[in-house]
Amino acid sequence: MIETINLADKFALIDQPWDPRIAAELNGQHVRLAKLAGRFVWHHHSEADEFFLVVKGRLRMGLRDGGPERWVDVAEGEMIVVPRGVEHCPEAEQEAYVLLFEPAETVNTGNVRNDRTRDHLGRV
Amino acid sequence: MIETINLADKFALIDQPWDPRIAAELNGQHVRLAKLAGRFVWHHHSEADEFFLVVKGRLRMGLRDGGPERWVDVAEGEMIVVPRGVEHCPEAEQEAYVLLFEPAETVNTGNVRNDRTRDHLGRV
Repeated sequence: MIETINLADKFALIDQPWDPRIAAELNGQHVRLAKLAGRFVWHHHSEADEFFLVVKGRLRMGLRDGGPERWVDVAEGEMIVVPRGVEHCPEAEQEAYVLLFEPAETVNTGNVRNDRTRDHLGRV
Repeated sequence: MIETINLADKFALIDQPWDPRIAAELNGQHVRLAKLAGRFVWHHHSEADEFFLVVKGRLRMGLRDGGPERWVDVAEGEMIVVPRGVEHCPEAEQEAYVLLFEPAETVNTGNVRNDRTRDHLGRV
């Protein structure tokens, strides 16, 4: 059954930050929704490029992509792609809502395992 | 070079409806941006599921997915996934802005070839 998916309705179902949920699956990729608050963990994905669209609020993305570590502001209505292998660390000073595109097998903490690792994502 | 991509700035660069542009590429997939106005053409993609997020305005998606032909409203802030093989026809009574996520090799008119077919997409 093909149905529309309302972003606001779906985000309203997410209680916790750093708890990505699957909103749609297509072509082996996930569309995930997550609330962010505070700083995540530095990590990379060796096999996956990762796309972020800021739906609400503001994201700061820490990047170690060759030069000195830097932090890039990603405002509401802006997107960023972090290529595979690049160490990154999402941060949101205020709560932010983010839509992600990435391969379905991508683990949120990449090469790192800690209490924020989510191996099995719920749907929303 | 990793850079942010601003949706409003990118849409401002698109002059014509039904002229999808590549905003980002990752994992063999495209993030495309398109302005829609009027009715497109009924078509399907035999090898690609297609994701639409309405960034501005309202999309009506014609669907022939088993039952009688139907038209689904997709409002601003809503998404829809059209699975491979399903005949569909996007329509926008007023100009709408849409973000698409689909395999990089996907041709916009799918199994149909007409004056709206775009084999080689520009970037934006």
